[in-house]
Amino acid sequence: MKKNIFFKHLGPFVLNELFYEMELSKKLKIFNIKNLQEATNLDITFLDNIDYINYAKSTKAICCITTDRLKNYLPKSCMPILVKNVLFELCKVTRKFYPHADVDSPDLSLKKPKKTIYPKVKFGSNVLLGKKCKIGKNTIIGSNTVIEHNVTIGEGCIIGSQVVIRNSLIGKNVVIQDGCKIGLKGFGFIPLKGKNLRFPHIGKVIIKDNSEIGANCTIDRGSLDDTIVGENTFLDNQVHVAHNIKIGKNCMIAGQVGFAGSSVIGDNVSIGGQAGVSGHLKIGNNVKIGGGSGVVKDIKDNTVVMGYPAVTLKNFLRNSKK
Amino acid sequence: MKKNIFFKHLGPFVLNELFYEMELSKKLKIFNIKNLQEATNLDITFLDNIDYINYAKSTKAICCITTDRLKNYLPKSCMPILVKNVLFELCKVTRKFYPHADVDSPDLSLKKPKKTIYPKVKFGSNVLLGKKCKIGKNTIIGSNTVIEHNVTIGEGCIIGSQVVIRNSLIGKNVVIQDGCKIGLKGFGFIPLKGKNLRFPHIGKVIIKDNSEIGANCTIDRGSLDDTIVGENTFLDNQVHVAHNIKIGKNCMIAGQVGFAGSSVIGDNVSIGGQAGVSGHLKIGNNVKIGGGSGVVKDIKDNTVVMGYPAVTLKNFLRNSKK
Amino acid sequence: MKKNIFFKHLGPFVLNELFYEMELSKKLKIFNIKNLQEATNLDITFLDNIDYINYAKSTKAICCITTDRLKNYLPKSCMPILVKNVLFELCKVTRKFYPHADVDSPDLSLKKPKKTIYPKVKFGSNVLLGKKCKIGKNTIIGSNTVIEHNVTIGEGCIIGSQVVIRNSLIGKNVVIQDGCKIGLKGFGFIPLKGKNLRFPHIGKVIIKDNSEIGANCTIDRGSLDDTIVGENTFLDNQVHVAHNIKIGKNCMIAGQVGFAGSSVIGDNVSIGGQAGVSGHLKIGNNVKIGGGSGVVKDIKDNTVVMGYPAVTLKNFLRNSKK
Repeated sequence: MKKNIFFKHLGPFVLNELFYEMELSKKLKIFNIKNLQEATNLDITFLDNIDYINYAKSTKAICCITTDRLKNYLPKSCMPILVKNVLFELCKVTRKFYPHADVDSPDLSLKKPKKTIYPKVKFGSNVLLGKKCKIGKNTIIGSNTVIEHNVTIGEGCIIGSQVVIRNSLIGKNVVIQDGCKIGLKGFGFIPLKGKNLRFPHIGKVIIKDNSEIGANCTIDRGSLDDTIVGENTFLDNQVHVAHNIKIGKNCMIAGQVGFAGSSVIGDNVSIGGQAGVSGHLKIGNNVKIGGGSGVVKDIKDNTVVMGYPAVTLKNFLRNSKK
Repeated sequence: MKKNIFFKHLGPFVLNELFYEMELSKKLKIFNIKNLQEATNLDITFLDNIDYINYAKSTKAICCITTDRLKNYLPKSCMPILVKNVLFELCKVTRKFYPHADVDSPDLSLKKPKKTIYPKVKFGSNVLLGKKCKIGKNTIIGSNTVIEHNVTIGEGCIIGSQVVIRNSLIGKNVVIQDGCKIGLKGFGFIPLKGKNLRFPHIGKVIIKDNSEIGANCTIDRGSLDDTIVGENTFLDNQVHVAHNIKIGKNCMIAGQVGFAGSSVIGDNVSIGGQAGVSGHLKIGNNVKIGGGSGVVKDIKDNTVVMGYPAVTLKNFLRNSKK
Repeated sequence: MKKNIFFKHLGPFVLNELFYEMELSKKLKIFNIKNLQEATNLDITFLDNIDYINYAKSTKAICCITTDRLKNYLPKSCMPILVKNVLFELCKVTRKFYPHADVDSPDLSLKKPKKTIYPKVKFGSNVLLGKKCKIGKNTIIGSNTVIEHNVTIGEGCIIGSQVVIRNSLIGKNVVIQDGCKIGLKGFGFIPLKGKNLRFPHIGKVIIKDNSEIGANCTIDRGSLDDTIVGENTFLDNQVHVAHNIKIGKNCMIAGQVGFAGSSVIGDNVSIGGQAGVSGHLKIGNNVKIGGGSGVVKDIKDNTVVMGYPAVTLKNFLRNSKK
């Protein structure tokens, strides 16, 4: 992860400032919070889930928020910081580094686009742009659309009317239909009675070349990671893509499909209308998921599944006949 | 229910004006139509469902639209008006008292906000406000958002872009993300071939402090009652909340969940993505409803349910293994 | 199908120009591409599915893209053009006749409405109209709504705020609530790795008199056919209607229902919330589909179905008890 162009980043902090209640170093400077793979020896990271121990073993982070049970998966170069609730501490630490990423305060710097700045872009009426947006040539942007600061949109794109895009990098020849809301914070928080603690969302949405997003879709940006829609992947209307989802290339996602957070979808996957994919799953390449299915487990490459919970097509048909 | 600030109210009517085809009093004045609990001895009410007989027994209404089968549950102070189709007659009577609440005519009095009236509110571009809106200090309202007449929004709220709010009271520190449509009339009508008779929606939407509504959600206002989202309850994107729904405190409602009308959801309830809750149900406190479930029955406190139709988790797992 | 007022139409082409790689006539002029029923002896048509052979037998088209297996269902007057992949060739031919219908380039000719042109229409703020829109008297159009060129809206309609309507004919006394996106291209394309080939959508959306469309619905226009919502049919919020769907009269479609493409729904049909209807089905008159159901087969008149996959209510209840 390079410099975050969308969110103001504070720091460095010494370790003791990040964890007031523990007696930790007042000298060790921590520059950023990153995931296990991306952290350098200037960064803090976290380990909460045994599924990620392969990344843990090779992390370069200087220290890691984790539990007593998981600490031994970390390399010696990485100091474990033992806590009871990793996500709660992670949330608090991330909020220190990124104090403005937990809610989406609307961009108040929006202005109508200047023809001198975007001579080769066509704009509808009342388009509103934030500062430092980059928009490629031959791109068309529909009326009443809001594009917030620092968003990049490639060449030859068609962005519909009444769209909102923030915290996003859009590739070339992408179609985004009317009413989409892209790059908003995801549904992540620590539940606390009376006042939930919102998790900062410092990731982006990345939509790659030649892809298409149907009308009234919502694609949330990632929390620490990014949310990604791969090349030539088409989404139909009213699809919901939660934070940190990574969808591969050449996928077909039909109407009203929903993805819970952090799942990874392979290439050439087709998903029928109204299907749902639970969080933290791995869906292989060339998978076909029937309409209305509820996927709650990983799916291997080249598999056809259907049902709620989704099973292989063979099992689904057998069960339906009973 | 106090004075209705959102809808023009006609009346009083004498009883005979409300029911032309019956030979009823030409002297008894009726001032309003209210539900069983809220009616005073100046009001007419209705009883259509045996589930509400406890309210019927103690109603203060002067008269009640009901059926021959249910009339004996009313107190002597309340005159039964016997009809074949309670909802049809209720609809016609309500339309007399509130002739402008059956469709949502867009507010044509909208204007750009004046800094002198809202000095401590931050507005994006092209925000449109109706008359008599109240907006608390430190609230931010995104671009192209429409807030219709008499809406109240508390302090410290963040309202996204391309939102519509009407007939609503929003608490403090509420977050409403881009594209939400809040306070519109619900899906209620008497089906009549060729021309359905729309039920007036004279209730409001009340969203309480510290709650959050995800992008592109729809929350319909109540018909006679209000629709309520409790304190510190968070809704993810594309959730649909129908008329008269009451959601408690500290709930977590994931993406694309749908509520049919008039159900009551307890406190600390969590509902997984794409689940649906049928109408007129009572969901207890601390209930967990799995993603994709279809809830068609009441659920007791502290229960975990899953499936379509939703059953206890234990039964769901047993059925899935068969 | 009369003259297409929404899409620029090229032609005629000689047959050889439409199929470069075959050795076909360089003299036979083809004026348009139409479906089996609507084609005249100036038009090309297509036959891909054995379900349509009754239409094939009586088509008046001069030639037909089809397969070796299906060619014998065509009359002698219609020359078969034999291909391996009918939809792929159909897509390419349609793109020649209609080169601008495969993506929805936002209408850049939008202007604020002139009171002199629409003296009896009430407009909210920042309404944007394309050229040659026709709007009937006593119609009200909410703020920030976009109505693109050539759209017709009848008398007495109420169109909400932040709506987009294109390529559509709207009847009288129709209610369209806030945030709807109507008349956009459907989800149709030939999947090709790296760059899908989008199918042109040259059809319209037709919404008939007295119907109602709830908030944030999406109704896609047809590909070759039209998408139709019948008289006095009401859709709740967040319904998705895909291309070529034809819904009859007096239907009730509850929230978050989804229709895949090309199904035909009868009159007086009621569909519960979150139900889904697969593509290319025929749903009879007076059918009731339970909430959350997944319909994957044709349904006869007067049937009540429920479940996933949907079965008759009797079978559903029996299965649920197991």
